[in-house]
Amino acid sequence: MLFRRVAVIGVGLIGGSFGLALKQAKACGHVVGIGRSRANLETALARGAIDSIGDDAADCDLVLVAAPVAQFPRILEDLSSRLSPDAVVTDGGSTKRDVIAAARAALKGKVGQFVPAHPIAGSERSGAEAADAGLFRGKRVILTPLRENPEDAVEKASKAWAACGARLSRMDAEEHDAVLSTVSHLPHLLAYALAQDVATRGNSGRLFEIAGAGFRDFTRLASSSAEMWRDICLANRDLLLADLARFEKKLERMKKCLADGDAAGLERLFEEARAARDKWLNPSS
Amino acid sequence: MLFRRVAVIGVGLIGGSFGLALKQAKACGHVVGIGRSRANLETALARGAIDSIGDDAADCDLVLVAAPVAQFPRILEDLSSRLSPDAVVTDGGSTKRDVIAAARAALKGKVGQFVPAHPIAGSERSGAEAADAGLFRGKRVILTPLRENPEDAVEKASKAWAACGARLSRMDAEEHDAVLSTVSHLPHLLAYALAQDVATRGNSGRLFEIAGAGFRDFTRLASSSAEMWRDICLANRDLLLADLARFEKKLERMKKCLADGDAAGLERLFEEARAARDKWLNPSS
Repeated sequence: MLFRRVAVIGVGLIGGSFGLALKQAKACGHVVGIGRSRANLETALARGAIDSIGDDAADCDLVLVAAPVAQFPRILEDLSSRLSPDAVVTDGGSTKRDVIAAARAALKGKVGQFVPAHPIAGSERSGAEAADAGLFRGKRVILTPLRENPEDAVEKASKAWAACGARLSRMDAEEHDAVLSTVSHLPHLLAYALAQDVATRGNSGRLFEIAGAGFRDFTRLASSSAEMWRDICLANRDLLLADLARFEKKLERMKKCLADGDAAGLERLFEEARAARDKWLNPSS
Repeated sequence: MLFRRVAVIGVGLIGGSFGLALKQAKACGHVVGIGRSRANLETALARGAIDSIGDDAADCDLVLVAAPVAQFPRILEDLSSRLSPDAVVTDGGSTKRDVIAAARAALKGKVGQFVPAHPIAGSERSGAEAADAGLFRGKRVILTPLRENPEDAVEKASKAWAACGARLSRMDAEEHDAVLSTVSHLPHLLAYALAQDVATRGNSGRLFEIAGAGFRDFTRLASSSAEMWRDICLANRDLLLADLARFEKKLERMKKCLADGDAAGLERLFEEARAARDKWLNPSS
């Protein structure tokens, strides 16, 4: 057994799946769930993702913070006074610069106990109801360790995520936030924008009636938690705005091809996209 | 048996699936395949989507044109002189105004034999290899009949698509093109733009390494045939450019929320999108 007592703060898709996975791997003893919604905690308890509902992380040797990132300052503030000296804290936040800043401010001299992590294992589903013991299996978890982290703490956090079945990699927080802005936050924003556009048109009933599998997949990300993605987009807004500006330049190029009737130019852009995506999914072909 | 001899011009995903489905339903006798690529026609033959490879649609009582829409003028020109007086022609083109204009120009007095159709049953896969007898099952096929069509011709075309398992509806060509621009052509363009953006960045290797299921689904449409989508986007460019302009206004609103740190405004936009999409997929919930 790796951990005697685990606290999961925020028992949603990520937190609930973490509890289920650690327990299935027999990697921990008791799991205490902490959160805002009593109903959601009851669901987590009934599903076996947590063993009890608690108020704080006292006496725990592993803590996962898996709440929307805007709540981290308050959560880490609360955690600071209750944290056991031997405990390791990790998190599931999708942005890392803001989470690290919040941890430094709240945990102060204890910040070395906090090993920032981001599991690339989301889904548009949310809440304890969506938790799944296999969510992290084979998925990447990016650690963005701090200079204050003793290697021992990074190793404990790594073992926790590895016990959930994840593949681990390390990156610095700046690169993490830049990469995720491009491959995750930007597509979320675009999916929300298109779904919101269609939803607010006069003929939205007709549009949804005719929309097929392409629209469904393109907008899947727009079924994600609005609160969670509001927080992520705001936390990472400098990089996201830069990515949006770059994306709009790409759109300008496509618009110019359309307006000019430039078939060869348009096909070249489409083909670059297609070839790169197919190579990504089938590196050998 | 509904049709004695069927010609499929363009034996790709749509044409090949049409041949397989009609044959599985025992709705036709011989199917002759016509196309540009000998290799693709051989694949179609080996897979049983067609019974022979031919040069023209002479002596056929049903013709499906399922080529990229920019090829319709030439194909319909060729078809015009060979068309049996009792034959019905239908198509699988994703745009209808341009296809109808091409049909009027090429078929002239015979245009009443042409019943325009659009099966909403695409996939990012293409070619005879991807053909599937069940592709149209339960999927919508939109007919955009012409004032020149005798009801008898519309009925024959309807029966062909119904034999493939499709649900039929009717719309005028202008509405069809406007609706499809919004729910299909625009998301394709956006998916191509994001995949092309990522593919051409200096750190594209890193970006693809970290990209997860969200990016995969968002960009699925970018694996579609570049030639086919070049033609569709150009054929429908007036409506597509108008949709793009509208979409960019939505992006402006989101950018303003980000720049202003307007959390409530951003969450409201995201939540409108989420609620509308979820209601679309689960009307009862």
